[in-house]
Amino acid sequence: MTRAVEDLPTPAVLVDMDVLARNIARQAGRARQAGVRLRPHAKTHKCPEIARMQLAAGAAGISLAKTSEAEVFAAAGFEDIFIAYPVAGLGKAERLLALSDRLRLAVGVDSPEGARGLSAVFAAAGRKLQVLLKIDCGYHRVGVLPEDALEVSKRIGELPGLSLRGVFTHAGHVYQAETPEAVAEIGRQEGETLAETASALRNAGIGVPEVSVGSTPSARHAMRVHGVTECRPGNYVFHDGSQVALGTCALEDCAMTILATVVSVPATDRAVVDAGSKTLSSDALRPRPGGHGLILGTRSRLVSLTEEHGAARVEEGDVFRVGDRVRILPNHACVVSNLHDRLYAVRSGRVETELRVAARGRVE
Amino acid sequence: MTRAVEDLPTPAVLVDMDVLARNIARQAGRARQAGVRLRPHAKTHKCPEIARMQLAAGAAGISLAKTSEAEVFAAAGFEDIFIAYPVAGLGKAERLLALSDRLRLAVGVDSPEGARGLSAVFAAAGRKLQVLLKIDCGYHRVGVLPEDALEVSKRIGELPGLSLRGVFTHAGHVYQAETPEAVAEIGRQEGETLAETASALRNAGIGVPEVSVGSTPSARHAMRVHGVTECRPGNYVFHDGSQVALGTCALEDCAMTILATVVSVPATDRAVVDAGSKTLSSDALRPRPGGHGLILGTRSRLVSLTEEHGAARVEEGDVFRVGDRVRILPNHACVVSNLHDRLYAVRSGRVETELRVAARGRVE
Repeated sequence: MTRAVEDLPTPAVLVDMDVLARNIARQAGRARQAGVRLRPHAKTHKCPEIARMQLAAGAAGISLAKTSEAEVFAAAGFEDIFIAYPVAGLGKAERLLALSDRLRLAVGVDSPEGARGLSAVFAAAGRKLQVLLKIDCGYHRVGVLPEDALEVSKRIGELPGLSLRGVFTHAGHVYQAETPEAVAEIGRQEGETLAETASALRNAGIGVPEVSVGSTPSARHAMRVHGVTECRPGNYVFHDGSQVALGTCALEDCAMTILATVVSVPATDRAVVDAGSKTLSSDALRPRPGGHGLILGTRSRLVSLTEEHGAARVEEGDVFRVGDRVRILPNHACVVSNLHDRLYAVRSGRVETELRVAARGRVE
Repeated sequence: MTRAVEDLPTPAVLVDMDVLARNIARQAGRARQAGVRLRPHAKTHKCPEIARMQLAAGAAGISLAKTSEAEVFAAAGFEDIFIAYPVAGLGKAERLLALSDRLRLAVGVDSPEGARGLSAVFAAAGRKLQVLLKIDCGYHRVGVLPEDALEVSKRIGELPGLSLRGVFTHAGHVYQAETPEAVAEIGRQEGETLAETASALRNAGIGVPEVSVGSTPSARHAMRVHGVTECRPGNYVFHDGSQVALGTCALEDCAMTILATVVSVPATDRAVVDAGSKTLSSDALRPRPGGHGLILGTRSRLVSLTEEHGAARVEEGDVFRVGDRVRILPNHACVVSNLHDRLYAVRSGRVETELRVAARGRVE
């Protein structure tokens, strides 16, 4: 006995399983065609069930951001995990050591200082941790600049207990790109910068077999650059309002929507739904701000959010009545799943199953 | 055996229990002095343990935003709950009926359309649900305008199964107030608007014993207005960066901080910690934007957040090294607790206990 979507209490996070499956297949096809491994970033969904669909479609393993997330996925049976994050601290290193008994594990590093704790713990145990050096390809968040990569690689290479598997990068600045051409250009630069950096390291005698690029908008461009071996997009399973705005996908490629109820229509130009920032997050639409979520089937958007209220400016021709149920396209899917314990897997208007967001709340 | 704060994995949400207790006592004292009931909004913490401290200090009951939150607090033994939200839909009404067997329950309404479902379910069961009419005192989110209150009250009064207990409001626009004088003025207006509305209803023969105002910045001003009977501040238990910026409290009155680790110092002017928008939320500092969290003991702030990275602009004189542990003052405490399963209760540098955020994830 499945439930009708209309019977769900609101707000509820819906995942259209047909769209999800299509997104997973398409991304796998892109990677196959480009001849690179796909290692999707599972922080987007934090659901082992969805990650299993990604592996079944051909993904080589998964990427994660947190040691605690890796613990959840390891417990769920995943055997090949890359923590694409510069993990620091002895406590984390001990947990990574325990994890490395059970799976093929790699971890990001971006400084000898940060790598030292990992080195100490793995060397003391007579073990080697595979690490990838983060390269800053222009985003300027973390990572070493390409011109510093050789020196940092050498210093990390001197640390016992570590083995440099490759280089990785993330062109997060692609989310500021205002045109599809700019997206493509950033993607190409991402791939070229990383491939050139890897090439320079190899010329200096440092083996870096893995050359790994990231991000849903840029990956399809970066993965086609010669020398790139792996891509790590995450958001593509769901897509969201920002991906539509960036031109990464069409509206019908968005698998995640929020089911909400209109709770108040206090003025002719304002309707308020029971989904606020605790449901949708406050993340802005990118590349340009544009409210907090399109109400599907209408021209109206949520224009302001508080914790439990989403206020739409009612556009001409749209009518909302108290009690109406609406579907909202979120700005940023990855932070929506992180706010919820379960996602409702929907097909043809019925709730097929509930997907537990197993690694939600695993912040450390 | 308690743990040292320094031994916690990061990021971690810390609550200084001495500051928390002082905040609770002060707010209770303010309400007592003003001669109004205190019904704190527990959406800020979602922790039964903290709500019990509020009751022990003299609170008359609690406010909540969601039916599901009320279910959690009812299960934890709370007996007097006001859902300060215009609840709509038959499914919710059925759940409220079940709840009303077990406690003194009241619910917000702001339209006859929204109230109709509640009315139908309670009338069919031969029961009365206490409702409070939401008045829009200038925030323009939900609620009826004061000039419409009489007509709407009459229409709601005609619905069987409901009993109008009073009026309530929330001056959310106080968070845009740029000076302490503006905060005070909005608070006074909030109290006066609501007291005058209640008075007009009484003059028309409609009994509204409860006159309930809200919000941590405005409550202390609104509660002093003659005719106000109850106040519902929430944030005051923790306070946060926005309350400091609004002049509601001093820095030392902030009970909630985020313990984080510096994971990367990629440039002399940039340090990155392991607390991003999945830890701190993306909520902006109010009343004016000002980054995403002050690093305590420094002049530096987080200036950009992504999901798992918080990037600080390093101000002159501040030094950050990879592995350093820092304490961050969040912009908005209410959304931080909602992102975490547990808060660490801290006293004198030791973790006394873990507070489970019991109603977290209860979105419906």
